[in-house]
Amino acid sequence: MKRIVTIGGGTGSFMLLSGLRRYPVALSAIVSMTDDGGSTGVLRDELGVLPPGDVRQCLVALSDSPEILRKLMKYRFEDGGLAGHSFGNLFLSALEKVTGNFSEAVMEASRVLNVKGEVIPVTVSDTNLFLELGNGRLLRGENEINQDMKVEQIGVKRIFLDPKPQANPLAVERLLGADLIVIGPGNHYCSVIPNLLVPGIPEAIRESSAQVVYNGNLVSKRWHTDGFMLEDYVEAVDRLLGGPRIDSVTYNTRLPSEDLLKKYAHEAVLTGRRSGDRMIGGRCAVIEGDFLDTRPVKYSRADKIAATRAFIRHDAEKLSRVLMALLEIA
Amino acid sequence: MKRIVTIGGGTGSFMLLSGLRRYPVALSAIVSMTDDGGSTGVLRDELGVLPPGDVRQCLVALSDSPEILRKLMKYRFEDGGLAGHSFGNLFLSALEKVTGNFSEAVMEASRVLNVKGEVIPVTVSDTNLFLELGNGRLLRGENEINQDMKVEQIGVKRIFLDPKPQANPLAVERLLGADLIVIGPGNHYCSVIPNLLVPGIPEAIRESSAQVVYNGNLVSKRWHTDGFMLEDYVEAVDRLLGGPRIDSVTYNTRLPSEDLLKKYAHEAVLTGRRSGDRMIGGRCAVIEGDFLDTRPVKYSRADKIAATRAFIRHDAEKLSRVLMALLEIA
Repeated sequence: MKRIVTIGGGTGSFMLLSGLRRYPVALSAIVSMTDDGGSTGVLRDELGVLPPGDVRQCLVALSDSPEILRKLMKYRFEDGGLAGHSFGNLFLSALEKVTGNFSEAVMEASRVLNVKGEVIPVTVSDTNLFLELGNGRLLRGENEINQDMKVEQIGVKRIFLDPKPQANPLAVERLLGADLIVIGPGNHYCSVIPNLLVPGIPEAIRESSAQVVYNGNLVSKRWHTDGFMLEDYVEAVDRLLGGPRIDSVTYNTRLPSEDLLKKYAHEAVLTGRRSGDRMIGGRCAVIEGDFLDTRPVKYSRADKIAATRAFIRHDAEKLSRVLMALLEIA
Repeated sequence: MKRIVTIGGGTGSFMLLSGLRRYPVALSAIVSMTDDGGSTGVLRDELGVLPPGDVRQCLVALSDSPEILRKLMKYRFEDGGLAGHSFGNLFLSALEKVTGNFSEAVMEASRVLNVKGEVIPVTVSDTNLFLELGNGRLLRGENEINQDMKVEQIGVKRIFLDPKPQANPLAVERLLGADLIVIGPGNHYCSVIPNLLVPGIPEAIRESSAQVVYNGNLVSKRWHTDGFMLEDYVEAVDRLLGGPRIDSVTYNTRLPSEDLLKKYAHEAVLTGRRSGDRMIGGRCAVIEGDFLDTRPVKYSRADKIAATRAFIRHDAEKLSRVLMALLEIA
């Protein structure tokens, strides 16, 4: 069976894995571990646990359990002191407390949820994402970074994790043994990059003989990557990988409805291309196509950060078909 | 396979079921549904759910899942806004929200926890326990009743459920088909009696051809049943059953350590007997024996009502052996 390793965060990975799970491949999802917003942020602060939110989404995406259990994991309490908490986050955090170990918690949760494939936290070190702006101001944590409106205007001097985390050895092992490594889609600074800042991860991707695909984002985040074209994302990721490594990049060419574009124009702009070339940098193939999910999106009214979540999204099936074609499995 | 139906609440039923589950019998645990203290009380108030605490304890007692899952269900959060909540309670309450139905939540939880036997809420009506004192003062809810120090001094005029609940049809069915019905042990007014106040339950017990055993409490609760002798409990339960129905009663004769007796003397006194007769009322056999658990008891430091829980407890194995002898299975 071909081995696919995905690298990302919550929503983007959820979409991707929901599509890939329908194919006869061995799936490993490497997940970033620096979320500190919403229910996850409260749990980190109050209980001192590792961030459960992104892992939880990937577990649900790969779960083969009855629909009711999958619904339970996504359920958010709506009232009282529990309001806003995702049950799945509480599940992982309580398991971490009981086992004393986040990796074991993920394994146990995978068993309960009958997960096909595996979900691998990129690190189990307790670490935070920092972004230093060009003027020296330091943004601490994904939440603060996500909400800052000056990132693009002032410019990013550096982005780093502190304390310095250790790569999950299982993540390194899976990357080395992969046939296909799929990076993204996901928030550039807060979902994709935090994985690549973990020492050992870029090295493993370079060393692996796998094809590397990068899924271009449908939209670029206002005040963060507003001016990014597809080529800029590819170059930024390649830079973190220590040089050109991405073999191909998927790029959506179908436009969302005018309504949706207007409605979310204050948050995001469509990701454009600098040129129509079929290659970026002479070596990374651009795979253009219709990757857009045209179904309407709904979030729980208890989700306190629903407004910040994506409303223009990838269609998991369309994207998976193309990735499978790369592996010649489709 | 012989069919045993237990009737009780949380801690007493947990003990009893932990012992009975080792025998080849079909077990059904009927559980009271009027708890409103601790984590359960907060969930009822804030989320409008049915009380999960007693059901949760019985599910764990009958669960054949890995130790880690059983530990998870008993885990109490220790910090922040979640402090004091039992994870298992959140599990049942979230399942009730997702399924829209407490019975279905219990069934789903039973599946996840690989429960041997079945746990049956005595009712799924949202109801409260009321106790009217001799002076007309009305105590509302288990928690208020439990904490009142005048119950025995003033005397109980009546105890009732409001709104009037409907018996769970499955509870009635199991009682009618039982070979052995085991009532108690448990807090007299707040665990045992609330089951018998549900219309249809006493009738089913009367109508059933099962043997009925009542497990005498080890201790009598200060200010509530201080002056109760074994015979008084039996008579009080029989009265609720509409006349003499209890065939036998277990009664512990082994004394706890002096230390333990002194330490908890402000909460409870040993349950005594009015006479040494081998029969009560000429028809209920008294089964005397050593039913005492001599191992030390520990509660989670996050359990906000740990101080009110039992420290002088039944030994599940000793008690089960005697109950099995009644069925001639031991």
